Parts: sequence; C-alpha cells; structure tokens
Amino acid sequence: MLPAAVLERVDRDLLSFPGAGLSALEINHRTDAYRSIAEATEAGIRRLAQIPPSYRVLFLPGGASLQFAMLPMNLLPAKKTADYIDTGAWSQNAIEEASKLGTVHIAASTSSASVAHLPRPDDLNLTPDAAYVHMTSNNTDVGTQWKTTPVVGDAPLVCDATSDIFCDAVDLQRYALIYASAQKNLGLAGVTLVIIREDLLDRSSPLLPKMLSYRVHADFKSLFNTPPIFPVYVLGLMIDWLLERGGLEAIGVVNARKAARLYTEIDRTGFYQGLAQPNSRSTMNVTFRLHQPDLEQRFIARASDEGLDGLAGHPTVGGIRASIYNACPEEAVDALAQFMCEFERTAG
Amino acid sequence: MLPAAVLERVDRDLLSFPGAGLSALEINHRTDAYRSIAEATEAGIRRLAQIPPSYRVLFLPGGASLQFAMLPMNLLPAKKTADYIDTGAWSQNAIEEASKLGTVHIAASTSSASVAHLPRPDDLNLTPDAAYVHMTSNNTDVGTQWKTTPVVGDAPLVCDATSDIFCDAVDLQRYALIYASAQKNLGLAGVTLVIIREDLLDRSSPLLPKMLSYRVHADFKSLFNTPPIFPVYVLGLMIDWLLERGGLEAIGVVNARKAARLYTEIDRTGFYQGLAQPNSRSTMNVTFRLHQPDLEQRFIARASDEGLDGLAGHPTVGGIRASIYNACPEEAVDALAQFMCEFERTAG
Repeated sequence: MLPAAVLERVDRDLLSFPGAGLSALEINHRTDAYRSIAEATEAGIRRLAQIPPSYRVLFLPGGASLQFAMLPMNLLPAKKTADYIDTGAWSQNAIEEASKLGTVHIAASTSSASVAHLPRPDDLNLTPDAAYVHMTSNNTDVGTQWKTTPVVGDAPLVCDATSDIFCDAVDLQRYALIYASAQKNLGLAGVTLVIIREDLLDRSSPLLPKMLSYRVHADFKSLFNTPPIFPVYVLGLMIDWLLERGGLEAIGVVNARKAARLYTEIDRTGFYQGLAQPNSRSTMNVTFRLHQPDLEQRFIARASDEGLDGLAGHPTVGGIRASIYNACPEEAVDALAQFMCEFERTAG
Repeated sequence: MLPAAVLERVDRDLLSFPGAGLSALEINHRTDAYRSIAEATEAGIRRLAQIPPSYRVLFLPGGASLQFAMLPMNLLPAKKTADYIDTGAWSQNAIEEASKLGTVHIAASTSSASVAHLPRPDDLNLTPDAAYVHMTSNNTDVGTQWKTTPVVGDAPLVCDATSDIFCDAVDLQRYALIYASAQKNLGLAGVTLVIIREDLLDRSSPLLPKMLSYRVHADFKSLFNTPPIFPVYVLGLMIDWLLERGGLEAIGVVNARKAARLYTEIDRTGFYQGLAQPNSRSTMNVTFRLHQPDLEQRFIARASDEGLDGLAGHPTVGGIRASIYNACPEEAVDALAQFMCEFERTAG
C-alpha cells in the first residue's frame, strides 16, 4: 500500500519527469536526473533519522534475504562468532543463512514460546567480542516488536528493520547497521536500504564479489552497477511524504494510535485473544485469534466482503493479522475496529 | 527508453490495475494478480524465444553484475575450470568476479585489439571438460556483437545477453544459460532474466546462501523472496510488445534496418570511421569516430541541440556511440542518420 500523495506524484511524473524530458520510467542512472533523485533521497533519509556523517546510506538490490548472506560475508571473520536473537520466522531465516557462512551463537530465543514475546533487552547470553549482534526489530509472523533496544555492550548491533523502519523515532546511534527492504514502509519491492557505520566497511574483504561487498557499494555511492532506479525514486517520494507529515515522531504518534485502536478492541471483552504479550505488541502487525478456527474463517470472509482484505495470519501461525504499515490510513484501521466490534456482536 | 505502447499501458494501470482494485505499484507478490503477471510473462518469453520445457525461466534481482558472481558460485566446482571469452569491458567484469571464486581460463581475447572485433566462432582455445564457457553476446563499449554462436562442443555455453537479448531470433538450445538485466531491452532496471537448462540446477550446492542459488529460485518459481514486482510487470509488457510486433524475427528485421541506416552513413565517404570490424558490428550499439576529437565534441554538442542525446562513447573507448535498443524507434535512427549527413556537409 502506498500513500495517496505518493501515488499522485508518480502519476504526475510518469509520462514526463520534471526537467528530464522523458518518463520517470526512462531515467538513466548516469544522468543528473537520477543523481538528483538519489542525493535528495539520501539527504531526506539523513534528515528524517538524524543520521550522522559517520554512517553511509546505501540502496541495494536483493531484499533483506540477500542481506542475510551479505552480512556474514562482510562482517563475520572466520575466527569470530556472530550473535543472533531469534524472535520469529525472519530471525530464523537470517540465522540459517549466517550459519552457512560462519559461526553463529543464539543469544536468546523466543520464537517457539507459547505466547509470543521478546527477550528482556538486558537478558541476552552474549558472546564476548562477538563480530556483531543481529536482531529483527519487528516480527511479522507473531506480531511482536522491540520497544527498547537490546543491550549488547560494545558489539555492533545489526537490525533487520524491514517491517518497521521509520515507523517511529529511532536512536540510530544505538545501531551499527540497519537494513530494510522497501516493500513495507519504503515503497516498492526492488530496493533495500542499508544504513551502515563507516568503520564496518573496513571488514569487507577485497576478495568478495563486488556486488556482495558493502565497501564497493559505499565507494561507488550505490552506483557500482545499474541500481533499481524506479524503486529508489519511489523510496524518495516515501521519504518526502514522511518529512511532510512531520517526521518520525509524528508518524510514531499516528502508528501508536492506529495500533491502540485495534488492541483496545482485542482486549475489550475476551472475544478476541491477542497473540503477543502486551509489552511485546507490534504497531505494524496486530495478531489475534478467535475461539474457534471456523470463526476465524468467517471473520476473514466477512471482512473481505466489506473490503477489508489481507487479514489471514502468517501461514505458520494462523489466526488473524492486520498489517498496518505507515501508509495504511487511520480510516482503514477505524473501519477494521468497527468491523471487529460488529462481528463480535453478530457472530455469537 | 520504453516503447510508447508500454508507457501508455503503465499509465493506464498505474492508479487502477485491472481486476485488482489497487495501483499497479501496490500489487503484492502473494496475490493472484502477481501470479498472473509472472505466469503470463514467463509464458510470453517461452513463446517469443521458443523455449522448451527443459529450461527454467527465472526473474532475479541484482543485475548482470550479481550474475557474474552467482554463475561461478553455482556452476563452477572447485576442481573444474570455466572458460571465458574476453570481448570487452563487460566480459572482463565477469572474468574478474569469476576469478575470485574459481579457476578461470581465457579461451580467447579480443578486448585489447586495435580494431574492435570478435574471435572466430570456431577458433577458441577451450579447456577439455570445462565447467562452462562464458560469452558476452554484445559489447556495449566497443560496439561488437556475435553473429554466429561460438562453437564450444559439449561444454555448457553461458551468455550475458544484457545488451541485446531478444533483438533478433535466437537458437536458444545452443545455450545452457542466458542472463540479461532488464534495463536495455526488457524494460526497467531491477530485474534480471535468467533462462537456465534444468540439468544445471543440480550443480547448485545446498550450502549456498539461498538468495544466490539458482536451484532455490527455480524451486520457488522466483518467489523465494519478494521479487522486484513492478520491474517484472514492465518486463511482461515489453514481452507483449515484442509479440505484438511479430516476435523476434520481425524485430530482428527492424533492428538490422536501423543499424544498416547508420553503418551506411558511416561508410559513405570516410568522414566517419566505424570502430568495429564490419563482420563484428553491433545492431544495438553503433560506434564510430571522427578525425579529430574536437570534431567529436562538436558533433555531440550539435546533436544534443537537435534533441539527439546520449551519443558520447563509452568512457574507456571515447568517440561516438549510438545505442539503438529495441525500443528506439526507426524515426530516431533516421533523424540521427540525417544529422550525420548534415554535420559532414557543414562541419568541414
């Protein structure tokens, strides 16, 4: 889902990109038009998240799934261990890939807990002198989200923020590297934002394939090869939209309100059961169950009849899941809350 | 550059994709809408290039530059050698990456020849039992293009066709693997087409990171992770456009006519000198020089005044380069030919 303002802007630029004399789909990456797009997008991201000059901002292909491999390839030397915090399906995917490429230690695991929750931020079993500690900030499958940054001492903290990047204010300097594919909060699938502390670039071996080296992409300012031009352009529009809405604190207030609207409905009578412990609840993916699976099927079907789609839970988890990313308007959340109330009243 | 018909179609679908109730930018990869797009695109490619069922068609991220690494990672076992034919800058990039990952032998090299040309197809110094032989079908820097497929015996022939895929009829079964990033002849940067003979999938080690495994992408029908949805959609429109124009033989006739128009102008008086030997000349990138570099600068500047842009040669080669990919209309080529004639008449 994209904000209406972003869609309108793409529609306006589509056949005639201002100043370029061609379609927004035809912009070449070696032109001033693309350089302006990429530079403005990076500047917007830096302003939005108050990113200091000691971090580099990269636009890479391949999604978070490619980052699962690039991370250990670049940052995990043969004699070191990387600590991973296992909080759900996406953490486990990251762990599986890293385990092929180096030594991995699980610093905490809550992914098989009967009630979805996150580890306590200061209760991790960390490796001394770990190459890095990896976390997943938001778990789309179970609907949990870190509220406090894990405490990891001097180890570089690496965060897969694909499903909640820029959903709220972020203390960027707590992290050494943040990565996020664009398709949840940053526009179109096809580009991955990587924000990396500059000193980590020294770990990229010159023996790495260039496309898999953070150092190479940083040295070439994300122009080592032809970047995913159009997804970068839409990413830029998403950043503009966030800035126009007042930045991360402002969108954080809206997201908290949207999530609270649904969790309040979940907690009202016991008809719905939230999947995640209250202190681990996600503002992006609100997960819950009904007493009987057939009631869940009726819920999903009737919601769809009313234009509320995409409510089936993650395949391995089941139940109901409302994904309410940044672009999801408050009116849509209100409509779902009203539907939940109405369904409870009439489904018994 | 995109064909007008493709741009019009994107413009039509942009705010309301038929049957999906949302924008073409908002299509989720787990929906029937995307499945239809991907399946129709694959079916179109199979029809266009007469691809037998023993080949798989994949849509991957990362461009040809990522293929330079994926190829040896998947297809070059530790005890084998891969043969590479070095015909220009892009061949050399492929060689550089493969050399990091395995044993590479240069079966022929023409990249430093004083007059750009290609090796004779049957004059390669091949390794017996090579893991594969790699070629670049069109060399954008010097403006050469293979007219006859190299003769490589039983070795799997792998082709980087990024800059001339589907420019003419292709005898697909001569190749074991063809790859091409989309931004030249297939639409938008962000997706890479890989056509791979199924038996090669057995070479992908299960120890490879999943995102870098042809086997994994084939098993998941290019849905292992979130694909670059919008670039795949535009790729599909490009394939439709090629089919509507009559397929590869028809576009081949048009491309031959476009290229001949420029080469005829180059050869007319000696005022222009073609960079490539006549039997190696590319139909996609027409390269030539003028007697003096300052004359070339004037040519490029005056052409730009007349709306003929992007004529500077490759940075390492210099001179003039007209890139006339599939989407470049015949009228634009005619305009350039007329400008060349006029420039010769008035520049002396």
